[in-house]
Amino acid sequence: MPGKTAEEMALDQKEISVAEFFEKNRHLLGFDNPAKALITVVKEGVDNALDACEEAGKLPHLKINIDDLGENKYEITLKDNGPGIVKEQMPSIFGKLLYGSKFHSRRQSRGQQGIGISASVLYAQLTTGRPAIITSRTDENSITKRFKLKIDTINNEPEILHEEELDDGFEPGTEIKIVVEGKYLQRYHSVDEYLKQTAIANPYAHIEYSNPEGENFDFRRAIHELPPEPQEIKPHPYGVELGVLSRMLKGTESNKVLSFLQNEFTRIGRTSGEEICRLAEVDPDKKPKNLKHNEQERLLNAMQKVKIQRPPTNCLSPISEELIKNGLAKEIDAEFITATSRDPEVYRGNPFQVSCGIAYGGELEERETEKVTIMRYANKVPLLYQSSSCAITKALEKTDWKRYGLNQPGSNGIPKGPAVIFVHLCSTWVPFTSESKESIARYPKIVKEVKLALQESARDLRRHLSRKRKGKKEKRRKKIFSNYMPLVLENAVELAGDGQELTIEPIMKRVIDEKLVEEVEEGDEDE
Amino acid sequence: MPGKTAEEMALDQKEISVAEFFEKNRHLLGFDNPAKALITVVKEGVDNALDACEEAGKLPHLKINIDDLGENKYEITLKDNGPGIVKEQMPSIFGKLLYGSKFHSRRQSRGQQGIGISASVLYAQLTTGRPAIITSRTDENSITKRFKLKIDTINNEPEILHEEELDDGFEPGTEIKIVVEGKYLQRYHSVDEYLKQTAIANPYAHIEYSNPEGENFDFRRAIHELPPEPQEIKPHPYGVELGVLSRMLKGTESNKVLSFLQNEFTRIGRTSGEEICRLAEVDPDKKPKNLKHNEQERLLNAMQKVKIQRPPTNCLSPISEELIKNGLAKEIDAEFITATSRDPEVYRGNPFQVSCGIAYGGELEERETEKVTIMRYANKVPLLYQSSSCAITKALEKTDWKRYGLNQPGSNGIPKGPAVIFVHLCSTWVPFTSESKESIARYPKIVKEVKLALQESARDLRRHLSRKRKGKKEKRRKKIFSNYMPLVLENAVELAGDGQELTIEPIMKRVIDEKLVEEVEEGDEDE
Repeated sequence: MPGKTAEEMALDQKEISVAEFFEKNRHLLGFDNPAKALITVVKEGVDNALDACEEAGKLPHLKINIDDLGENKYEITLKDNGPGIVKEQMPSIFGKLLYGSKFHSRRQSRGQQGIGISASVLYAQLTTGRPAIITSRTDENSITKRFKLKIDTINNEPEILHEEELDDGFEPGTEIKIVVEGKYLQRYHSVDEYLKQTAIANPYAHIEYSNPEGENFDFRRAIHELPPEPQEIKPHPYGVELGVLSRMLKGTESNKVLSFLQNEFTRIGRTSGEEICRLAEVDPDKKPKNLKHNEQERLLNAMQKVKIQRPPTNCLSPISEELIKNGLAKEIDAEFITATSRDPEVYRGNPFQVSCGIAYGGELEERETEKVTIMRYANKVPLLYQSSSCAITKALEKTDWKRYGLNQPGSNGIPKGPAVIFVHLCSTWVPFTSESKESIARYPKIVKEVKLALQESARDLRRHLSRKRKGKKEKRRKKIFSNYMPLVLENAVELAGDGQELTIEPIMKRVIDEKLVEEVEEGDEDE
Repeated sequence: MPGKTAEEMALDQKEISVAEFFEKNRHLLGFDNPAKALITVVKEGVDNALDACEEAGKLPHLKINIDDLGENKYEITLKDNGPGIVKEQMPSIFGKLLYGSKFHSRRQSRGQQGIGISASVLYAQLTTGRPAIITSRTDENSITKRFKLKIDTINNEPEILHEEELDDGFEPGTEIKIVVEGKYLQRYHSVDEYLKQTAIANPYAHIEYSNPEGENFDFRRAIHELPPEPQEIKPHPYGVELGVLSRMLKGTESNKVLSFLQNEFTRIGRTSGEEICRLAEVDPDKKPKNLKHNEQERLLNAMQKVKIQRPPTNCLSPISEELIKNGLAKEIDAEFITATSRDPEVYRGNPFQVSCGIAYGGELEERETEKVTIMRYANKVPLLYQSSSCAITKALEKTDWKRYGLNQPGSNGIPKGPAVIFVHLCSTWVPFTSESKESIARYPKIVKEVKLALQESARDLRRHLSRKRKGKKEKRRKKIFSNYMPLVLENAVELAGDGQELTIEPIMKRVIDEKLVEEVEEGDEDE
């Protein structure tokens, strides 16, 4: 038989750069098709810009422009008023995949992987061969720097084609300009819709946008204050795994196991630290580096058993009920809006928090027979794709909407009715189902929290619908009573004797007003 | 306002190793939960073993053993009779993510990313802290090498804990032994089922398997010959993108554009090469390196416009109709089995080919009211998860099964009935929806081919069912005729006159046999 030998095979074996990997697998990053690609580029730019502004404590102001260059090519320009980027970091941030500040940090941010924006640069050079142009200025006193760069795919390193310093009054912040193959659509899955949803969830951001058709959008601020900045936290003992613990033990600067536990984890104090050591039968004074494999295992097991407080939640930046209501009201002229925010929860040691809102009726009335519109968000970023595999959609489908007054064909599924349902999940680590970050993995704990949030808001909706319905009924009954009142009054007065009109009429009126209202409210409870 | 400056932010920015990335995102690689993790480890090992054996021209013989170590820990041992691995390559192949021979090669193989097996090692050390033990020997004349290794996650490099040479009669081939946290289930999604499906699609492989309960399985060969080895091909001009073309032009050893086109692409000859240059208005004698951006663009456009033959398909190793029938018959005792193989097609320049099979009735009869069992395969590897997002499932749901005799509640969806439906797609590059390679992206061209294949097999099924139904009817009618025959005969004889019994009886019998069969066959056409 022919066939290769081990030596021949060895010649073919080599390293694959992560840039090559994602170039060939670009659909994993959201570059499946031209329409989605255009949205993905804008999304990655907006994510980074908003993160940077917030981290710098600045109210975001974004200017986005998409030019149709013909032949399915689009030039996207995105400028922010963020803190800018120091010159040395500019090439790596835009020209290297898996590079950034958020991956290793345990706090809520939009970006988390260090792939997004450089993947856009990669996609640009792959489809149009054009370099990205990055301009940044850190403040009024500094020089503006500009790089023209590509990615050296084989090595996953930035390839700088040109760099210069400018003195042209560029307003501090960062601008990226790239040309990609794309397709502009004006549908539910569009850049326009994406930015509208972004504006709803980030009402403290001012977003100006000019689409390829030359239409201008100005999503102005609904509030003028940044939400509190999420704080970085240490890992929680319940979420750590053996391999990670082992690495932490090796790398720690603490001299004793006890101080290691207290210093490197959140929510471990002296008492719980001692209890862990006792349970694990590990000497609390031992050097962390010297723990043997089975001691590490026992330590991990003990850490899972000792009762430890939930992680702090100041690492999260949820969207408050007030903000959701404001955001929805700003963009949708509905007859009724409600919102709910749940308490924080934890999955695999990662804090997360769910909030949701429902807008009903008003301008939505015309969508009476359609499925409700679902707005899914993770860490304030709208999720437009892969809805069917998302924990949010699953929870929504498993909710019994008939109980709450929406039409739901079949026993579960997306309900129908003139409503927009908004769901936001924030976490220090959102478990996305792919690198393109379009859908949240269905951890049972997450699905449950989303369902509970939806039910809370749904109860408000039911109350509203019930009141509305009863209101209509009551009005009709009042009208009938009022029509007959003169006749009844006449008879009553006749029975009561002359001179009683003045006493009886107000009584009758009171009966109509109060009695009817009472009946309506009792009926409400029977629903 | 507080907030960070650009300089402060720069301190946090750093490189993320691909091993760190996948450690944190291990669900992307199929390590979402313990049950799936166990299957994934076996799967990655089997993929590599079968690929290596076939590449070396050896009939695969795999021995797999899973030991339950208690506390949700399992030791997996997988030994193959492949070509072995040279010592220098052993650490990188098992201890480095994105390393291998298949990523850059344009031919069908099970592995394609250089992630799978090292991800299993990563998962093992993360969950149990235990190193992988790799043993390999290339042939009878060489020494056996053994490595104990982990992955240095921060640097994505192998960390060798121990290495040794053995002289203990280890049979040539490679063995991997790892300990992972897992969960053994005996359900549809199980290692047992995974290996059974693997045996069906690879009937030239001998697979011995001992599960954690101590049960032994011996999937023996149904045929004793390897399929023709898939050949490596060059890229097809229709599938190339500007960024890749640009890189190829820079890196080529050809001195002229014309020879570059002929040498570096499949299916471009002198004539089509010249036509491309003419259409692109590019001098065919120009040095490839010297092409300007707009010349490159014109060249690419011209490459898409000139009529070029489809790529050759000897890069593929489809499963023939014969093999599918053999494979299904070997594992399922069905009353009827059929199979179809389509001609190769091309998506984005990548050749692919679909084949399918249906097994019906027999031992499946008891599943009459259940959904049919779907066996999805890509490059001979069973796909157990993420069925709902897969191109194969989509095509199956969109097929009108009622027409073919299966029950299909609603207008589309998975049909019900006592059947197993087998679908195999092979390609030089299967577009998986995630790194865990569980589901094929729904390219319209792929969905269409799967549907056409299913319809072909479904027509065979319909013919069978129709014959079966008519057969039953016919039998019943024959019986009635036969019952009445003596009476009819008696009367006929009476009418015809004495002494005619011997003539009439055979005529009557012939009428019953032939006439009824004829009616049945005519009826078939009306279906």
